[in-house]
Amino acid sequence: MDNIRYDEREKKLYVVDQTLLPNEEKEILLDTAEEMYDAIKLLKVRGAPAIGICAGYCLYVLSLQIKAENGDAFCEELKKKADYLNSSRPTAVNLSWALKRMVAVAEKNSALSGEALRARLLEEARAIHNEDIEMCRSISELGLSLVKDGYGILTHCNAGPLATSRYGTALGPILLGTERGMKFKVFADETRPLLQGARLTSYELFKAGVDVTLICDNMANTVMRNGWVQAVFVGCDRIAANGDTANKIGTCGVAVLAKHYGIPFYVLGPTSTIDMNSKTGADIKIEERDPDEIKTMFYAKPMAPLGVKCFNPAFDVTDNNLITAIVTE
Amino acid sequence: MDNIRYDEREKKLYVVDQTLLPNEEKEILLDTAEEMYDAIKLLKVRGAPAIGICAGYCLYVLSLQIKAENGDAFCEELKKKADYLNSSRPTAVNLSWALKRMVAVAEKNSALSGEALRARLLEEARAIHNEDIEMCRSISELGLSLVKDGYGILTHCNAGPLATSRYGTALGPILLGTERGMKFKVFADETRPLLQGARLTSYELFKAGVDVTLICDNMANTVMRNGWVQAVFVGCDRIAANGDTANKIGTCGVAVLAKHYGIPFYVLGPTSTIDMNSKTGADIKIEERDPDEIKTMFYAKPMAPLGVKCFNPAFDVTDNNLITAIVTE
Repeated sequence: MDNIRYDEREKKLYVVDQTLLPNEEKEILLDTAEEMYDAIKLLKVRGAPAIGICAGYCLYVLSLQIKAENGDAFCEELKKKADYLNSSRPTAVNLSWALKRMVAVAEKNSALSGEALRARLLEEARAIHNEDIEMCRSISELGLSLVKDGYGILTHCNAGPLATSRYGTALGPILLGTERGMKFKVFADETRPLLQGARLTSYELFKAGVDVTLICDNMANTVMRNGWVQAVFVGCDRIAANGDTANKIGTCGVAVLAKHYGIPFYVLGPTSTIDMNSKTGADIKIEERDPDEIKTMFYAKPMAPLGVKCFNPAFDVTDNNLITAIVTE
Repeated sequence: MDNIRYDEREKKLYVVDQTLLPNEEKEILLDTAEEMYDAIKLLKVRGAPAIGICAGYCLYVLSLQIKAENGDAFCEELKKKADYLNSSRPTAVNLSWALKRMVAVAEKNSALSGEALRARLLEEARAIHNEDIEMCRSISELGLSLVKDGYGILTHCNAGPLATSRYGTALGPILLGTERGMKFKVFADETRPLLQGARLTSYELFKAGVDVTLICDNMANTVMRNGWVQAVFVGCDRIAANGDTANKIGTCGVAVLAKHYGIPFYVLGPTSTIDMNSKTGADIKIEERDPDEIKTMFYAKPMAPLGVKCFNPAFDVTDNNLITAIVTE
């Protein structure tokens, strides 16, 4: 099942509702701007590239609902809809990137007939989608060249096929290598509060036959300390001009741990994620979300595929050189 | 409500079932060895010092059920029960420490009458309890001398009154300082998978009027990076002779982060936690627990006090110097 599917015959856009995974694989219809906004806001569609792909098709579907045939009136209406969709999530640059691209195509072709203009928009949405597939393949090949057969690889959040188009970015080298008969031992951080690692990454890798072990975020240190990890692969939501990288909460902590243990830390993502307008990470606005995501687990149980392995140590050992003082009575 | 309460009139032992917090404050009766084993195993009673205190009273209650009046037969039976209780959790040294202390008292006094012998055991259990109260006060005073009014303090797991007797160890300085009118800004890691930080620490601090903010474990890096934390306080389950310290999973990761950001990292615990038989951390056996703790949230919702503040950033920024390579298409 494709994560994002435009049905040519029905002229309808369907996406897999990622909040129902891994317990249910269900497509939902995105027909109104409000449904689209909610799907992105509520993470039914998530992953920066997938949001970009989805946004392209969304704007095309919405263009079919605009009364103006073409010209400035059409473009203005389309831009309004793009602005509305763009406000659903502030951090992912792919959303605004795809929307801008669609609006630019409309403006360039606004003199065409209504039908021809909309055909150009569908073409552009498909181009965004196909370019993503090519891009994922390319990233996967390059990422694969950084690891060896038998490596332990740690990943945080989800940057697999569900978050992109095919292969994914951070999971791409793992899935491509596995297709070629290589064996990796992957550790998937569950990624609180929304558990994308448990619900999506462990699901995608388990389904693909990869040796994946699910861990809580605070266990990443232990698997690194035990020498089980030779590389870290993560995706990215926005890369500043200086290389500072915004990604799912917890990514930077994993990078600090990797540095401490001398493990290479790789960020995988399309060039569209690079935002030259953000000089450094300080220029990237970080989205804050509802506290209830932390206080209340609203996902269906179980939150990971039933058969997936877990590593669940109750304790860890802190080396004496990391302790400033031990206070006793 | 005391977390562990021996009722003199009823001759019964009650403990607050910590797995029901923060939604319900309920005492449960521990009467049989099986109930006691389960209460420790299933974390109804938890926190190394609290387990020690509980184990003392448990062995006293069980001594009332031994048919032999005194002598070797009594001691042998008591030792069997101690061994059984001791097998409930392998890592916390206070459990075996308290049980050994009780058995030693029985052996030393086995010539006494049955009544006098059992009275000595109750006295010992109470001594363990009272010593813990004194110990917590002392640790709290010493810990308080390490921080200043207005400090941001990060803590992991729960080492508060519920985990000990009064004040607690890691939370002791915070509670004592608050009593004296000092203001701290505390960040409580939720502590997956069992959420002791969300369910217990944020509950204890919120109830005591402390300014506490609940975060997911993977957000500790962000609050440190933002400069909001001036000290880290954690408890401990076992300290090796060289100072390597076993504590709740995730503690070592917090220590690595604290070192990276130049924040002092303090371990607070009683000297009974020091195990000179463990030369280094490598000698400490780490308990592995049920994978379902990760895959299925079995706690009542909500998992934190309704009014408690949360900080819930969706992303973080990884500094370019922590990234080995950025892989694009």
